[in-house]
Amino acid sequence: MKHFLIIAHKAHTADDFSLNDLPGSAGRMDILCRCVNSALFLSHDLRRDVQVHLLLLGEPDPGRLIKFDGETVRYLNPDERSSGSLIKKALDKDSSDFEVRSTPGVTVRDANLSSILSEFKSRGCSLYYLLEDGKEIREETLPKGDMVFILGDHNGVTEEEEAQIEKAGAIKLNIGPISLHSDHCITILHNELDRREKEY
Amino acid sequence: MKHFLIIAHKAHTADDFSLNDLPGSAGRMDILCRCVNSALFLSHDLRRDVQVHLLLLGEPDPGRLIKFDGETVRYLNPDERSSGSLIKKALDKDSSDFEVRSTPGVTVRDANLSSILSEFKSRGCSLYYLLEDGKEIREETLPKGDMVFILGDHNGVTEEEEAQIEKAGAIKLNIGPISLHSDHCITILHNELDRREKEY
Repeated sequence: MKHFLIIAHKAHTADDFSLNDLPGSAGRMDILCRCVNSALFLSHDLRRDVQVHLLLLGEPDPGRLIKFDGETVRYLNPDERSSGSLIKKALDKDSSDFEVRSTPGVTVRDANLSSILSEFKSRGCSLYYLLEDGKEIREETLPKGDMVFILGDHNGVTEEEEAQIEKAGAIKLNIGPISLHSDHCITILHNELDRREKEY
Repeated sequence: MKHFLIIAHKAHTADDFSLNDLPGSAGRMDILCRCVNSALFLSHDLRRDVQVHLLLLGEPDPGRLIKFDGETVRYLNPDERSSGSLIKKALDKDSSDFEVRSTPGVTVRDANLSSILSEFKSRGCSLYYLLEDGKEIREETLPKGDMVFILGDHNGVTEEEEAQIEKAGAIKLNIGPISLHSDHCITILHNELDRREKEY
């Protein structure tokens, strides 16, 4: 299983935003919508072995985690408005420490970065953190088991978050010489993993 | 200069579509919007050495070519609705065989695949065509001069188009073992080109 965890500092945490203004009123929700697309979509198929975890840290209820599961997700199309609509439905659910299903394959719960990292570690996942000065992915041996790739939003991650990620033992990975949007990073990561899995 | 030419068979060719329904009423215009994003956007910057050519072949006026120029484009944000809005403004212009500017860095004109390919060839561009059974990009020597990468939409390209592309001397390139959306292919292409340019 491959997990993508995206930390979205401005993403709105209630469903009172407009699908017509994902960048503005929804706090750059468009970034998360594109990350869902690049993590899950193949040409005419979905990546069934992928889960996307969106950590929304904007107002009014910071610390909500929305999970898209490639195995079971339904009603998801590639356009931003489609994933935006499923995010909106998830945010319509009341806050809860327990996972609540909003639509098939989409769940929501309250969470913070520290607890999420602990959970991934306790499940034996290998943690990776995308960073310009990380190890070159093409030269890095990647494990056979579950992997978690951690990405920031358009403002990266805070110093405090970076400290937590490093403390959790995440390995810094670099995917190229230029700083890119998170969804583009996910596409490049997938390409590298695809090449290795298919013994290309 | 890097050019991306995307052939969109269903894309609507008038401005009477809704930005709230880019996949439906606009004939999978969402695909083109994502291609504009992946071709032009860097993190907090634009790729100035890129032009995106969208060949719209849907009704009611098939054969309109919209060009986004990374050097001069303005009012473009990363979300689909933003590029969709600039496409809509371009389609508001009357049909013309000559390039008409709709907004800064965006032009529109009437064209067909054959004439576009001839123009690129006459300007000395190297043509590449993305295909599963093409040459592996990581092993391919790429030229220093202008390159054109030709991609289809969700239905690929027709046999007739493929024949025209081959006749124009395009080299078939493969970017990985799994069939992907066109915008994801562009991101992977850019990553390979970035690595070579930056002597990474």
